[in-house]
Amino acid sequence: MMLMDGLFSDDALAEAIGPEAQLAAMRTALAALAIAQARLGIIPKEAAKIIQDAAGRPAPAPEDLRDQIAQAGIPAQAVIKHLKAEAGAQGDWAGFGATSQDIQDTGLSLQLRGALSLIETRLAALGETLDGARRQHGAQIMPARTRSQIAAPTTLGARIAVWRAPLARHLERLAELRPRVLCVSLYGAAGTGAALAPRMTELRAALATDLALCAPETPWHAARDGIAELGGWLSLVTGSLGKMGADLVLMARDGEVMAGRGGGSSTMPQKSNPVAAEALVSLAHLNAGALGTLHQALVHADERDGAALGIEWQILPEMILRTGAALRLAEDLARSITPHPARIAAVIAADGGRMMAEAAVFHLCRSMPRGEAEAVVARALAAMGETETLAGALEESAPGHDWARILAPDRNTGQG
Amino acid sequence: MMLMDGLFSDDALAEAIGPEAQLAAMRTALAALAIAQARLGIIPKEAAKIIQDAAGRPAPAPEDLRDQIAQAGIPAQAVIKHLKAEAGAQGDWAGFGATSQDIQDTGLSLQLRGALSLIETRLAALGETLDGARRQHGAQIMPARTRSQIAAPTTLGARIAVWRAPLARHLERLAELRPRVLCVSLYGAAGTGAALAPRMTELRAALATDLALCAPETPWHAARDGIAELGGWLSLVTGSLGKMGADLVLMARDGEVMAGRGGGSSTMPQKSNPVAAEALVSLAHLNAGALGTLHQALVHADERDGAALGIEWQILPEMILRTGAALRLAEDLARSITPHPARIAAVIAADGGRMMAEAAVFHLCRSMPRGEAEAVVARALAAMGETETLAGALEESAPGHDWARILAPDRNTGQG
Amino acid sequence: MMLMDGLFSDDALAEAIGPEAQLAAMRTALAALAIAQARLGIIPKEAAKIIQDAAGRPAPAPEDLRDQIAQAGIPAQAVIKHLKAEAGAQGDWAGFGATSQDIQDTGLSLQLRGALSLIETRLAALGETLDGARRQHGAQIMPARTRSQIAAPTTLGARIAVWRAPLARHLERLAELRPRVLCVSLYGAAGTGAALAPRMTELRAALATDLALCAPETPWHAARDGIAELGGWLSLVTGSLGKMGADLVLMARDGEVMAGRGGGSSTMPQKSNPVAAEALVSLAHLNAGALGTLHQALVHADERDGAALGIEWQILPEMILRTGAALRLAEDLARSITPHPARIAAVIAADGGRMMAEAAVFHLCRSMPRGEAEAVVARALAAMGETETLAGALEESAPGHDWARILAPDRNTGQG
Amino acid sequence: MMLMDGLFSDDALAEAIGPEAQLAAMRTALAALAIAQARLGIIPKEAAKIIQDAAGRPAPAPEDLRDQIAQAGIPAQAVIKHLKAEAGAQGDWAGFGATSQDIQDTGLSLQLRGALSLIETRLAALGETLDGARRQHGAQIMPARTRSQIAAPTTLGARIAVWRAPLARHLERLAELRPRVLCVSLYGAAGTGAALAPRMTELRAALATDLALCAPETPWHAARDGIAELGGWLSLVTGSLGKMGADLVLMARDGEVMAGRGGGSSTMPQKSNPVAAEALVSLAHLNAGALGTLHQALVHADERDGAALGIEWQILPEMILRTGAALRLAEDLARSITPHPARIAAVIAADGGRMMAEAAVFHLCRSMPRGEAEAVVARALAAMGETETLAGALEESAPGHDWARILAPDRNTGQG
Repeated sequence: MMLMDGLFSDDALAEAIGPEAQLAAMRTALAALAIAQARLGIIPKEAAKIIQDAAGRPAPAPEDLRDQIAQAGIPAQAVIKHLKAEAGAQGDWAGFGATSQDIQDTGLSLQLRGALSLIETRLAALGETLDGARRQHGAQIMPARTRSQIAAPTTLGARIAVWRAPLARHLERLAELRPRVLCVSLYGAAGTGAALAPRMTELRAALATDLALCAPETPWHAARDGIAELGGWLSLVTGSLGKMGADLVLMARDGEVMAGRGGGSSTMPQKSNPVAAEALVSLAHLNAGALGTLHQALVHADERDGAALGIEWQILPEMILRTGAALRLAEDLARSITPHPARIAAVIAADGGRMMAEAAVFHLCRSMPRGEAEAVVARALAAMGETETLAGALEESAPGHDWARILAPDRNTGQG
Repeated sequence: MMLMDGLFSDDALAEAIGPEAQLAAMRTALAALAIAQARLGIIPKEAAKIIQDAAGRPAPAPEDLRDQIAQAGIPAQAVIKHLKAEAGAQGDWAGFGATSQDIQDTGLSLQLRGALSLIETRLAALGETLDGARRQHGAQIMPARTRSQIAAPTTLGARIAVWRAPLARHLERLAELRPRVLCVSLYGAAGTGAALAPRMTELRAALATDLALCAPETPWHAARDGIAELGGWLSLVTGSLGKMGADLVLMARDGEVMAGRGGGSSTMPQKSNPVAAEALVSLAHLNAGALGTLHQALVHADERDGAALGIEWQILPEMILRTGAALRLAEDLARSITPHPARIAAVIAADGGRMMAEAAVFHLCRSMPRGEAEAVVARALAAMGETETLAGALEESAPGHDWARILAPDRNTGQG
Repeated sequence: MMLMDGLFSDDALAEAIGPEAQLAAMRTALAALAIAQARLGIIPKEAAKIIQDAAGRPAPAPEDLRDQIAQAGIPAQAVIKHLKAEAGAQGDWAGFGATSQDIQDTGLSLQLRGALSLIETRLAALGETLDGARRQHGAQIMPARTRSQIAAPTTLGARIAVWRAPLARHLERLAELRPRVLCVSLYGAAGTGAALAPRMTELRAALATDLALCAPETPWHAARDGIAELGGWLSLVTGSLGKMGADLVLMARDGEVMAGRGGGSSTMPQKSNPVAAEALVSLAHLNAGALGTLHQALVHADERDGAALGIEWQILPEMILRTGAALRLAEDLARSITPHPARIAAVIAADGGRMMAEAAVFHLCRSMPRGEAEAVVARALAAMGETETLAGALEESAPGHDWARILAPDRNTGQG
Repeated sequence: MMLMDGLFSDDALAEAIGPEAQLAAMRTALAALAIAQARLGIIPKEAAKIIQDAAGRPAPAPEDLRDQIAQAGIPAQAVIKHLKAEAGAQGDWAGFGATSQDIQDTGLSLQLRGALSLIETRLAALGETLDGARRQHGAQIMPARTRSQIAAPTTLGARIAVWRAPLARHLERLAELRPRVLCVSLYGAAGTGAALAPRMTELRAALATDLALCAPETPWHAARDGIAELGGWLSLVTGSLGKMGADLVLMARDGEVMAGRGGGSSTMPQKSNPVAAEALVSLAHLNAGALGTLHQALVHADERDGAALGIEWQILPEMILRTGAALRLAEDLARSITPHPARIAAVIAADGGRMMAEAAVFHLCRSMPRGEAEAVVARALAAMGETETLAGALEESAPGHDWARILAPDRNTGQG
């Protein structure tokens, strides 16, 4: 536990991906393997029953396996050993013909299925919440900023649409990657299925059917592109939410748009800090960096590389927790987006209509070449006093147009 | 240029993604925009023709635009300015209603299409070369290694299959991501299409059709998930090749399998270094790290964030070059894979048949409980002298089996 | 907790850097601040006494502050609030004139001091253990490998020396960076010390003296180079140990040198996996990647940036735990390094003396130009049969030298 | 070349660290080695003279060595070969007893010395420029922002001081790390100095003296902590400048403080983009990510690891170029920092004095308990209308204080 877990972690995902669930998932994998093997006549039916019963009992506490796992260098081995002991004489048949990595990875797929389902639900919900926010506040005029400076008018709705669009793409990507990630592993010690040849393929398919996972023909013991792809997806999600967070931090800067319950200060009573929005930014950077590390583990030696797997085992669960946390925080933020029209109006007023310069040029283009139009507007911009507006300046330098109306921001927000 | 470019860069990709091609791609985008605008009656037909002609002439040298680009902070701006000047009075219509980022990104998509096509071709070719290598050398018995130690027998074919399988998945992923990456950008200064409202959507679709790119409804000026996804894909490719490289470096360690033209030493005449295989490992790590940095840029402020774009602009071309280089090197290596049976036999001999221990256990399991079988084999392993073999030790401790035949590696390579 | 914590975490460091210690350290900082303020007459002596007493009582459980911390976005705020409540009416004086970041960072420095002291002790101890291993096994001839291939003879002692040398440099670096990292923070809400001006500098110095920390003049609220430098140091340490781990994994490959208690396999009874050495490699890669993320947080906005701090808070503790874990594992490995001369001899024999080629050239150089000498040796190498040795081949092609003696590996290990 | 090199690269550093200089540096190393060897009687004096003369002639063009380098996998080998050929019969003595990595790394140290000297000069100059900016504009009141929101008053001087302070620490760090980085390499093929034993240590010391570099006893062929430390330092420098860049981008947001020549827009005539400040942010993130990748290469196999060196060779030069570019841009920015008091006043006015809340509390603390004071101020904050000021609100709720004077920002900027 860390003191900031209330922000940076997530209870539901922690449960889905945590150590207790990991032990349970591997036990489920071992039970399913035994059942499938019994059905195919590879191990005695009675043994399978006993193994299944043992696997159905509560798993040992993670702490109790800690030293054994450290010694073996892989959790599955301790889990197999423990289940064998629980199942008594027939326990010998547990994990028959599988290598510990097979059980480890099949368990992982079961965990990931649950975690991805939670994440998908949140992602879809967030999309709807943002749609709602857009319906509610979308018409609010805002100054668009490019390269941090006021550029031209937009709407809060157009901003929300930019946050929203990637979420649909992420759901699409998730559907595509699932069959590459949610797979059984059953290839045996050397990845050749030798121990159970020639029935390994058949058995793998049976296990996959029982667990509703995929069953690639070639071992993924050492080809971890599915895992790395998943990491990339998680970072895409947190990255998109980090963009939303960054915008919310910036819009809160002058109070234009607020969201979330603001954090107070220990010494400044007026503060209302955009804590959750900042956390979205942190989470995006953390997952981005983690992704770079996870992809390092694609360089995987031989049939199985403990050093590469060690990287995966540390990085992937954290990325999942962070994705869950980010979606939770984003949902809270999306639900509470509140524009402050007076503050926005003040920012727009301070700009003096400079952000309408492009619109002025395009209006003038109707009656003169673009270069000339640009020169007219540039002269007006240069001539503007601190307190004047662009419309005012143009009244003088390019009279005969209803500049106030032409340059009204709400007439210049396009199709956003 | 760097001294190691012969290994770490790639001429064809450098041409596709390099600065000259970038200037050309942006000019193509500007010409196509003008043509589409003329067709829709947004700009004069004659202007479009003149712009198209100007764009068809040779682009300025990158060096000549360097200072202007640095001043603007975005290449497209200098390109637009230069093309306007080339096209004379009608040049004013160049990039009409677009923002520089629109031209920048549409040009990028055109470049990426070319680069991805080259990469796809190489990826497919490498798959076939590996299939060929597998047909030729696949039956060669090798000691499989898990966690770096000899585990059980496998074949060179099974190893090649593990390199091969992800390549097919990468092609599948590429097909999926293309429509999310190869898109026009045409959203205008604030991303709202205001300057050309209400015709921006129609115009964008027309431009996309002309350029055979996609046309998302919502601006991707600030939502860079497509780019980040592409980076992830490139790193998946180099990561898979890095795994192949790592295996080739390790197999060359004792001369079991050699590939590539070995690098010599300045002082050791006997050396034949696995230079290309090592480079595959370097390239994988470099792209993995670069991916972590690229995803940092998903945190993108406001409607356009020059700091985030700056990261993308530096990272993505390098990742593409490295992917091209890795595929080129991998192809060379795959074509020249050569097993050295005598060396492999020596390694297997030095193991004394210990790698057949699992096979011995599984054989004994037919006639005794697994735990007992494991104990028998463990005793034989413990009793083995330095020069003895496991088969020999088992003849003594578990007589009555034809151990030499049962434990022959070539009878124990499963379905690999 | 994660299932692999027995390898990848460390109990002593987890205690030093964990949440309970963090709460305690912040309370210590608050108490010390009150005492110093009372001494300087800034707050009532009695209030300081009460605050000190309250801070001396057990801290709340981290879980109990979780929600409050998440709301505030910074742990210190909840700690200050809680201590104020504990101290009753006089508690108001707790953290007087400080901002929450001051308490957070002063607490951090106290924690880091403890953690670095543990790490330093282990680092020094490891150096001595390696010296001992070198004394014990240093003379063992080994084939040096460059670019993974056998190059020329070296000794196990020379290899250990390469692992050992950076440790001394790391201790030197640690001494240099300590005064830049172990600092009080006391600059107030805006970093100007305004609330307690003109006495903030004096008070900061007093607090620093009491806590035996440094007191930089300029606030480090937003200038996190000290933290980033520390992260770099931690990654240098784990990187050096990762190199040792990589070598141990490779030397265990053919059983030349073993270290650590080998991990077994669930299905292969003969396996003795270099689990701890692999973990050193994982830890090095994990910290390297984490460092890249930590440095991202150097880009810190304004007077205090919650998004940047959030990165630090997640990354730094993990890096410390990993460094502690790596040192613990490295110590175990260093204590148990065991060369297996017969295995080494077999590897050397399989090389057929090719690794002596440079020595042969240098010997011949005494009596002929170097180019000629290289040609003679190259011819001998080319003429060698699979079972011949270089010495044998040279007897024929360059007779008149006592090649067996000249090319004896133990006469050619230099000053290593 | 890339189109953005005018921002992201640097001519002087590119010259110091580029391929031509790299060839020249290795030739210098070879010449110095020959001279030192001749002085110690290891090679003929005449040979040394000829080698020195040859090395003094223009080096070959990098392009001409490209293929050879790619084949060898290390530039030094091609350089040695080429110099040998240039020097004729006596050329055989070039690089005598050294391995190519010795020449590669000694050349690298020579290049790094030059590059670090340029960087140090710029760093020192930037410190002085910032001191000047502080003298000139330091008194300007600014609203300090914590967690992006207005917190309390500060000055532009205090902000500049936060940018300035790390620069001094970076110079200190540079002085410390130089002797660990700027070293000769001369250890021979296996790192044991065997070829020239027992004179290698003496020779290495002589060479180091001649080249004014350090000469560590233990080979750093495979212990790259010096290089990784240097990378860390470069990223600390760009990170600190990235913080300055981030602040300048944010201060330009509403025009409070401008710096640099603003970049224009292709379609918005009013824009003046903070291009250089954004580039500082990009460069910081790029170097941070690169650092994470560079540290991956600390895991270095055996006596020399081509895969790890390949990472270094690609990453380090880029980090140096970026550091040079960042210092150049920062200098331009620092020279042109211009506060816009009217814009700052507008931001302060919009805040309505809320940022003085802490000061109000501290003032009231003199006459009432802190908790009570906080309550009084909180009530005033809550009662404030949109257009009121905190001083005004306090006049009503806590009369009898000269609130306008007490809460004047310029009386509340502490010691900054």
